[in-house]
Amino acid sequence: MPELRQNLATKEWVVISTERAKRPEQFKTEKVRKELPAYNETCPFCPGNENKTPYETFVLKRDGEWKVRVVPNKFAALSSSGHLERHIEGLVRWMSGVGIHEVIVESPLHNQTIATLSEDQVRDVLIAYKNRYLSASTDPRIKLITIFRNHGESAGTSLEHPHSQLIATPVVPSHIRYRIEEAMRYFDEHGECVFCKMLNEEMKTKERIILETASFVSFIPYASLSPFHTWILPKRHMSSFSEISDTEIEDLARNLKTTLAKFYYGLDNPDYNYVIRSSPIDADKCEYYHWYLSIVPRLTKTAGFELGSGMFINVSLPEENAKFFREMKVE
Amino acid sequence: MPELRQNLATKEWVVISTERAKRPEQFKTEKVRKELPAYNETCPFCPGNENKTPYETFVLKRDGEWKVRVVPNKFAALSSSGHLERHIEGLVRWMSGVGIHEVIVESPLHNQTIATLSEDQVRDVLIAYKNRYLSASTDPRIKLITIFRNHGESAGTSLEHPHSQLIATPVVPSHIRYRIEEAMRYFDEHGECVFCKMLNEEMKTKERIILETASFVSFIPYASLSPFHTWILPKRHMSSFSEISDTEIEDLARNLKTTLAKFYYGLDNPDYNYVIRSSPIDADKCEYYHWYLSIVPRLTKTAGFELGSGMFINVSLPEENAKFFREMKVE
Repeated sequence: MPELRQNLATKEWVVISTERAKRPEQFKTEKVRKELPAYNETCPFCPGNENKTPYETFVLKRDGEWKVRVVPNKFAALSSSGHLERHIEGLVRWMSGVGIHEVIVESPLHNQTIATLSEDQVRDVLIAYKNRYLSASTDPRIKLITIFRNHGESAGTSLEHPHSQLIATPVVPSHIRYRIEEAMRYFDEHGECVFCKMLNEEMKTKERIILETASFVSFIPYASLSPFHTWILPKRHMSSFSEISDTEIEDLARNLKTTLAKFYYGLDNPDYNYVIRSSPIDADKCEYYHWYLSIVPRLTKTAGFELGSGMFINVSLPEENAKFFREMKVE
Repeated sequence: MPELRQNLATKEWVVISTERAKRPEQFKTEKVRKELPAYNETCPFCPGNENKTPYETFVLKRDGEWKVRVVPNKFAALSSSGHLERHIEGLVRWMSGVGIHEVIVESPLHNQTIATLSEDQVRDVLIAYKNRYLSASTDPRIKLITIFRNHGESAGTSLEHPHSQLIATPVVPSHIRYRIEEAMRYFDEHGECVFCKMLNEEMKTKERIILETASFVSFIPYASLSPFHTWILPKRHMSSFSEISDTEIEDLARNLKTTLAKFYYGLDNPDYNYVIRSSPIDADKCEYYHWYLSIVPRLTKTAGFELGSGMFINVSLPEENAKFFREMKVE
């Protein structure tokens, strides 16, 4: 019989198709890993083409060469200049589309990705994330900052050069507000952060843990919505990503790189999105919310049922997939 | 400057990329419309292969031949037999996966779709929907009934033969509960159904209307999340799809078929999902919620920002797309 499981923190339900579940190995993409060149002269993110992107808002140099660059997105979804205006009348609920949209170029090399970069290089990427997060949070128009990475075409990217993005919006979307409210309700009821609780429980059984490092734990949640849907949670309670310390950044680099290497080598480089789910600016440093990084590989398709109900059907067992990744060795 | 728009009913925000917006014609798929045979001997839904599917739960015959058949899904996501059990301990929030999962075979012809079927045939499909909805709602384990259609591979279907599905779940997912709560709040504040309000406002300006028939209006909402995201709303206030009358079924057949024909001929048969968003069973016949049919064509990809924030970036103008469809003639 299938199981219905509910995520303690988000309160989302998922159908786990126990009988139709595929084995972890069956999720290997049949993708032929395309050999990319280390340098592509037409790529706007490759060294030598710096003039094809807008001015740098951040750059990290080592030995005289840039290792990570951040630039405003040339095709920004939101406008960095302009006043925040609001207009409400009838069904019109309008705001001016102001905000911040930046691109974090993760390496000078065209053919790398987080899974293949060195830990030091991933650390530098995370340093850039924190720097840009802090910078965006000083803008009084900004209410929420989302840092994310689209890997591969089905995850919504067309640019090969390794990069992440930051979008800062002048509203807290309802999707985020609901999660915050659920976390507040749990705190009111139990006097503790629901994410800390989850982590403690996961650490007791260990059956869904992928990798524990000094300050972070990557695991496949009990009610993960899709195959290999993975969370990386900081052990220390922090509601905002901006609270991450230098030591924690180094540790997250290790955890993130190794976890993504398990995707890369174990499932043949599947397309994925990852996103840092940090608290809205106005819930910074709160006791009820806890930031984390969520990895969503694009191994299955969502259809009408998911769109209509918000419930997912997961054709895999979180415990089996976690074991597969936990026992896999990556160099 | 881009615009932020909020849907009055769902409270979802969308970024409308006014400057980067594509013209309606640019969303035409480059798909070569595959010529399918009217009959495929290996298809489990084609006439003559009735023994390849489980027993019929509903069949509609005209002139001695079946026109619409409903059968349990052979690969059901939920189990129709079994008790509803619940188990809560630590982070485990578990329920037995009981529910109903049926397939509505929409035509004996292998190569048809709602856009190309006759109005009478679409009416028969809708009669089957209502029949199965009513039947599922008598099961005391059931809390929500979702009827949906996946059209094309990127919308999550692999079977060519025209069909829809019904999934009835023993929980009301949080996604639905939030929508209900938003609608209740609006009712408390304004004393009217927020969907009735939306419809009245849309009918005043008419700039986002695609098609008005006797009892239904199809339109592209002011804050539609993606290009050509369309709602078909009944003019009469009804919270549950099961309240639809015979006359309204006939009219919905006309509206749905014509609206989807505009997709089919105007955008070269794009993949899409549609879903009937009806009230949960326990909010049946309430004054604050209003059922509707939502069509989501798969013309763009969602990526990390959408996953992380729940906000969407729409690279089209709802008003322009609605005008394009409104002025398009389909036979």
